[in-house]
Amino acid sequence: MASSSSGLTERKLIHVPSTDNHARFNLSPVPSVGDDDEDEDDAFDHQTRRDYPDIDQDDSGEEVDLGGNPLDTTTTVTMFDHDHEVTNASDRKQDNGQMTNVAYVVHKHYENFQTIDWLKDLMRNRIRHRNLRAQRRQSWRKRLAFWFDAWSGWICVLLVGISAGLVAGFVDVGAKWMSHWRTGVCTPAFWLNREQCCWGSRDVTFDDVHNELCSSWQTWSAIFGMDELLVSAWFFRYFMFIFWSVIYATFIVILVVGSAPYASGSGIPEIKTILSGFIMYGYLGKWTFLIKSIGMIFATSAGLIVGKEGPFVHISCCCGNLFSKLFPKYGNNEARKREILSAAAATGVSVAFGAPIGGILFSLEEISYYFPYKTLWRTFLCCMIGALVVRIINPYGNGHEIQFPVEYNVPWAIFEVIPFIGLGALGGLWGTLFIKTNIRWLKYKKTSRIGQYPRAEVIILTLITAIICYPNNYLRLTMPELIRRLVGQCHVEDHMDLCDYQRDKPIGTATAKLYAAFAGPGLHRAIWQLFWALIVQVILIIFTIGIKVPSGLIVPSISIGAIAGRLIGIITEQIAFQNQHLAILRRECGVSNEHCVTPGLYAVVGACAFLGGVSRMTVSLVVIMSEVTGGLSYIVPLMISALTAKWVGDAFGEGIYEENVKLSGYPYLENRESFRFTLKAGEAIRANRSGEPIPLACIYQDGMTIAQIDLLVRRHPHSIYPVVISEDFPCIVGQVQRRDLLAVLKSRKTQLTFTHTKPLLNRKVSVVSMSNLLNKSGQPSTLGMRRASIALQASKTLQLHKLVDRAPILVTDQTPMEAVIDMFRKLGCRQIFVTKNGHLQGILTRKDIIRLMHEANVSDKFER
Amino acid sequence: MASSSSGLTERKLIHVPSTDNHARFNLSPVPSVGDDDEDEDDAFDHQTRRDYPDIDQDDSGEEVDLGGNPLDTTTTVTMFDHDHEVTNASDRKQDNGQMTNVAYVVHKHYENFQTIDWLKDLMRNRIRHRNLRAQRRQSWRKRLAFWFDAWSGWICVLLVGISAGLVAGFVDVGAKWMSHWRTGVCTPAFWLNREQCCWGSRDVTFDDVHNELCSSWQTWSAIFGMDELLVSAWFFRYFMFIFWSVIYATFIVILVVGSAPYASGSGIPEIKTILSGFIMYGYLGKWTFLIKSIGMIFATSAGLIVGKEGPFVHISCCCGNLFSKLFPKYGNNEARKREILSAAAATGVSVAFGAPIGGILFSLEEISYYFPYKTLWRTFLCCMIGALVVRIINPYGNGHEIQFPVEYNVPWAIFEVIPFIGLGALGGLWGTLFIKTNIRWLKYKKTSRIGQYPRAEVIILTLITAIICYPNNYLRLTMPELIRRLVGQCHVEDHMDLCDYQRDKPIGTATAKLYAAFAGPGLHRAIWQLFWALIVQVILIIFTIGIKVPSGLIVPSISIGAIAGRLIGIITEQIAFQNQHLAILRRECGVSNEHCVTPGLYAVVGACAFLGGVSRMTVSLVVIMSEVTGGLSYIVPLMISALTAKWVGDAFGEGIYEENVKLSGYPYLENRESFRFTLKAGEAIRANRSGEPIPLACIYQDGMTIAQIDLLVRRHPHSIYPVVISEDFPCIVGQVQRRDLLAVLKSRKTQLTFTHTKPLLNRKVSVVSMSNLLNKSGQPSTLGMRRASIALQASKTLQLHKLVDRAPILVTDQTPMEAVIDMFRKLGCRQIFVTKNGHLQGILTRKDIIRLMHEANVSDKFER
Repeated sequence: MASSSSGLTERKLIHVPSTDNHARFNLSPVPSVGDDDEDEDDAFDHQTRRDYPDIDQDDSGEEVDLGGNPLDTTTTVTMFDHDHEVTNASDRKQDNGQMTNVAYVVHKHYENFQTIDWLKDLMRNRIRHRNLRAQRRQSWRKRLAFWFDAWSGWICVLLVGISAGLVAGFVDVGAKWMSHWRTGVCTPAFWLNREQCCWGSRDVTFDDVHNELCSSWQTWSAIFGMDELLVSAWFFRYFMFIFWSVIYATFIVILVVGSAPYASGSGIPEIKTILSGFIMYGYLGKWTFLIKSIGMIFATSAGLIVGKEGPFVHISCCCGNLFSKLFPKYGNNEARKREILSAAAATGVSVAFGAPIGGILFSLEEISYYFPYKTLWRTFLCCMIGALVVRIINPYGNGHEIQFPVEYNVPWAIFEVIPFIGLGALGGLWGTLFIKTNIRWLKYKKTSRIGQYPRAEVIILTLITAIICYPNNYLRLTMPELIRRLVGQCHVEDHMDLCDYQRDKPIGTATAKLYAAFAGPGLHRAIWQLFWALIVQVILIIFTIGIKVPSGLIVPSISIGAIAGRLIGIITEQIAFQNQHLAILRRECGVSNEHCVTPGLYAVVGACAFLGGVSRMTVSLVVIMSEVTGGLSYIVPLMISALTAKWVGDAFGEGIYEENVKLSGYPYLENRESFRFTLKAGEAIRANRSGEPIPLACIYQDGMTIAQIDLLVRRHPHSIYPVVISEDFPCIVGQVQRRDLLAVLKSRKTQLTFTHTKPLLNRKVSVVSMSNLLNKSGQPSTLGMRRASIALQASKTLQLHKLVDRAPILVTDQTPMEAVIDMFRKLGCRQIFVTKNGHLQGILTRKDIIRLMHEANVSDKFER
Repeated sequence: MASSSSGLTERKLIHVPSTDNHARFNLSPVPSVGDDDEDEDDAFDHQTRRDYPDIDQDDSGEEVDLGGNPLDTTTTVTMFDHDHEVTNASDRKQDNGQMTNVAYVVHKHYENFQTIDWLKDLMRNRIRHRNLRAQRRQSWRKRLAFWFDAWSGWICVLLVGISAGLVAGFVDVGAKWMSHWRTGVCTPAFWLNREQCCWGSRDVTFDDVHNELCSSWQTWSAIFGMDELLVSAWFFRYFMFIFWSVIYATFIVILVVGSAPYASGSGIPEIKTILSGFIMYGYLGKWTFLIKSIGMIFATSAGLIVGKEGPFVHISCCCGNLFSKLFPKYGNNEARKREILSAAAATGVSVAFGAPIGGILFSLEEISYYFPYKTLWRTFLCCMIGALVVRIINPYGNGHEIQFPVEYNVPWAIFEVIPFIGLGALGGLWGTLFIKTNIRWLKYKKTSRIGQYPRAEVIILTLITAIICYPNNYLRLTMPELIRRLVGQCHVEDHMDLCDYQRDKPIGTATAKLYAAFAGPGLHRAIWQLFWALIVQVILIIFTIGIKVPSGLIVPSISIGAIAGRLIGIITEQIAFQNQHLAILRRECGVSNEHCVTPGLYAVVGACAFLGGVSRMTVSLVVIMSEVTGGLSYIVPLMISALTAKWVGDAFGEGIYEENVKLSGYPYLENRESFRFTLKAGEAIRANRSGEPIPLACIYQDGMTIAQIDLLVRRHPHSIYPVVISEDFPCIVGQVQRRDLLAVLKSRKTQLTFTHTKPLLNRKVSVVSMSNLLNKSGQPSTLGMRRASIALQASKTLQLHKLVDRAPILVTDQTPMEAVIDMFRKLGCRQIFVTKNGHLQGILTRKDIIRLMHEANVSDKFER
């Protein structure tokens, strides 16, 4: 064929020794020929997409050996095409198309453990969208493609909502059944949990902690024919409880450590980092999804002090990631994908707690980084669908989405502000204590030998937890059950310990108000048991969070807070009752001594305070707590405690998620704090280079030899290189990515190698990639091949101006660093070029900024 | 004195004719003398601040006549001081201080109807904070000042919360009393409203619409001794109702039109614009505050179809503005002040509805532009305090913050999703209809003669409203009362028309569930009355919104939605009842035909849908509706209707607030929509200049004569001028504000004039300002004066490098316009300089962007 012969021709041409070392040829004839058939161009584009990864993988090796080839030094690389700088309208339009085809598609693949460039990604998406839009009149297929593209965001979040809801329902039902399985079996139908088992039966009674008991539900000792009341039977039940717990834990820890290490922990710090633009391949993959879903059932059923609400965020994000692959708009663009992930994270909370609004706010306040208005709006749908699916599955069995319902509506009294503030302060203190000790423990594990045995750690911890928890009535419950007991109000029918008051007045109808009274013996017993439970949970949670199973800390925090709150509530109630003659109490509680202190409310407030102390959420916390309890009348108490908890906690340090991000060393650019820099951008560059006057690694627009570029790429392993006009006149023109340069160098090398040995056509990949990078047309057709060869014949110049992104972000050297950081945060760019009087002075990358901020933080602490 | 003589000396020196037209002298000796006493400098600063406005006022005239003086042409203005470019640490520090004292303080005053430069304002604040921080070790006073500064934000929002809560309580109580006053008087104590009047009495009965009636409460006809049952008495009551309505309306419209035109309307569009960085002096002033507070009582009491919830946002912002004046951190910095205003806007909703979380979200979603995390956090406190104060005042009299309580907790059935979606669609359609007609009516009024008689318009409208409304039982109620009836569930005791069902089963206890039944005659009557009320409100609201009284549209929308919702609810209920044999209904409603369709819930959902159709809120809407009704179990239905309403509404146009912003022509940079530009920044500049090759109005760093600058300032009335190195080498160095240049020119002129006629000391103002701008020390003392004179003697050069802001925002000409717009939106800058290869190409201002976006929008519509 024609091209094979022309390839040979080229070989000859290149062998001609060149005297001018910087000879420049422009390829302008070729693009003007190739402009008329754009559709072919497009088709080709797809091919490149498929082919490109091959080159990509070699990239990671980062070393392309080219220096040995003496031929290369004669070839010049120009970064810019001066003759082509006419900007009439038609030319511009064509140029846009070109940008899409080459420069922007080339940057498509992302490297693992790198941050994305938001600005460029979003720009790329806009160009893609514009092209689709422009083409939509051409045929009904393209019109369909356009509409599909426009609606794909909605469809995607719909799917995410449904799937997250289904998983949540499945996990909720499964975890409950498996938890109850540790204590006994429903003999008529083993697939029912205790609650469901006793629903139908007529002989339901309740024990001290309001557990249902009925004849259908048989404990393990009964099944094995032992007398329930014997001490040995109790010990047998104790043993079975421990046995099943350890079995569950062993199963899941083997699965997690063996197959999906990313499935451990809550995942929220990682999701935060990912949403801020970090790439972690596999973290949201299908295996993580599957094993984490199963793991949540097993880990919570094993009785560990872990919750399944944090991991739900991770699981939802996995759904988001998996579904976004169906939609190229999101699957191929990491910046856009994060919109779906933001919505998915919100849905995680929405389905975990049945709190759609709280989920949206959690995503907005705590997790998301880039949250445009449209995302808010999609998140809304996603959360709603998730909640709706959970509502249809109805895992709590009450026809509502509310998990821990407060059924009371008693107004709270103004003097109660004092205990609420006290609870808030306590929550803040506990949060600090927990974060400090937990982080210290995790750090210790990293360095010591314990960290090398994650399986043993989990199993031993489960064993200890089960041994300690079974004897205590309250700890034996699952945490959601415990919380539900604690936030509930005492009804007349209740005969549980917590509701044992010495009521002297006869109680009328079932709905009559319960008046305050002295605590009875049951309540005293309950107080001591709860106190013990509090201590156990506080100690165990420190060691539990961070083990290699899916483990959230939201529900454990709520549980600890609810216990503390209920205890303080009972104390306040008794104090108020015993001092009811005081004027302030009489006015607030009414003369007839109505029930004005509700211990259940204190449990809610305490839960809010303790969760606030750990997570340092504000608005989302209050909304989640309101939605979880359904107690909208108690927004103000919740706000008071959240505010106090955050104030107290912030005085001592950061929240658990921030600390975890720091511990893992993720490149997360905190977008909340303001740093006190006195630096200007120019000085920051100098500070970066630590005094040494290293020359900047620049590419000159006018021309460099391949050897020079090769040297540059090897000596300065930056991810991006600025393109300037010339050495004497370093005015910035644009930027080139290292990966693109490497690809060009490699393809150039391959091509040169092959021209020595084989005809050009045999290695389509390299030619195709190369012609794409070398000239302006990039045709895959024979015509294009021929053209490429013609170009090659004519060229000792690699024209790389398509690789040059001519829209770098600039600042002057006098710009204060605060403004520079603002630009990094708000624009999400990866590097900023610092210029002085138009001349390039240096580059600031996101990592420089994170380091600078860290240093500023440290020096700030010393200054204090 | 020394300076007077030196002033004379200088005069002589200046009169010496200069041969070198660009003679440059650096004033470097003077700053080095002045560096040692910074405190004096500070004191002086305050003086300048006071003096500056004098210069400022002249600015608005914009013409400074300087050309007539031939002397000036001999004086050169340098924008930069090359010798001073050493950047060792101590120098830098001094430079920062200098920047605060001169460049940044000089920019302090804001012009009316201008947008602020967020970036510069925030930077200014950071420098101020850094100075305070650096000085805090010097004395206990400075330490105190530092702490006061650090806490001033919290103190300020605390005060705003308390004041907004108090105003809300006052307005709520006042409006209720005045509304009831139209129908009668509480004879034992005229200051009580009907509800309070009947609380104590034992003979309370209820009429058809559940109004309290008791002997203490006497209608006007009874007071005037007429027989209640006579037709004439009815007409007399009718007359009194109309009479009082018109009196109220007349009073308030005279007050508003005469004294505070800014007090009219809801104020939300304006607040939105102000929060986006627009300056409107007086809009948040104390008169607006006072008259709007009173006006809200009168306007709602006059029976107009207006709400007081929107205006509360405005009033709260007034509080925010007034209190922020107490704190220099916020009072002197418009960008920081907007943080307080954001919090205040949220508090407005919080106190108006008793919805603290809804308020935060409303501010976040709908109103605020710049909402950093710290603001969210302060907003939280502010809303909480506001809600707490309202709770203590207890205007709804139920011990809760909930305004329209739903006391039921019936689960909703899945099939009800269909009517909910229907209500949402209806809400979206109505919203569109209302917005289109209302905007058209407002436009018509602007051009026609009606707009010239705002007082008559209000009075006539009140008359018509009163005449129409009184005969209808539901319209006669105030809107909050009506809504409360509509969202409520029927209890057994209720004998109002709305609860008149043909119940065949005997009803047991008071709390027994009410079973569904056929509608009774009362209900039929109620349906027709409500239908009539709906039509009346729908028509009246179109003409009412936009009149010259404080008028919100949130409560009217809720009212219309609630009526529509209740009607549809009753219809659905009857359909469900009559088709109870259908399988789907039987499964959902239970075999015993329990009450599974709750008409009250439909009223809530309808309210949400209709408000959503008008305002296009999403999350905040759902949260506000939940908080207002306390119905957290119904989040999902609310979400469904809000989503549908927004979808349907958005298909036809924008929300009312956006439309109002457009109608008023405010320079609001929409930060939601994405525009489809194919332009690049360089092309946008060319498009801006519309083809003509106007040379850029630049200032050259090396030196320009005063006459040149004067000419420049006069010919090109831009608000900012770029400073470049030289004409041949237009690399950007920084930017200078027009106002600063004018100030310098003016002071220079004054000084020159006065040196001819009077000794220098007599005009302290001009010398002081001038010395401040001329040299680096700027001493107000005799020493400073002397130095200034020395400087003047030595100088034919105006050194303006302090005026130059050397941190302009740059982009390259190849940057896509989407990215440029992103920078405008996210960084909040006022102009961006476009460079090409380091050379200045042009300037894009925020107004250019708004115009471009508008054009793109228009062409986009044509394209469709």
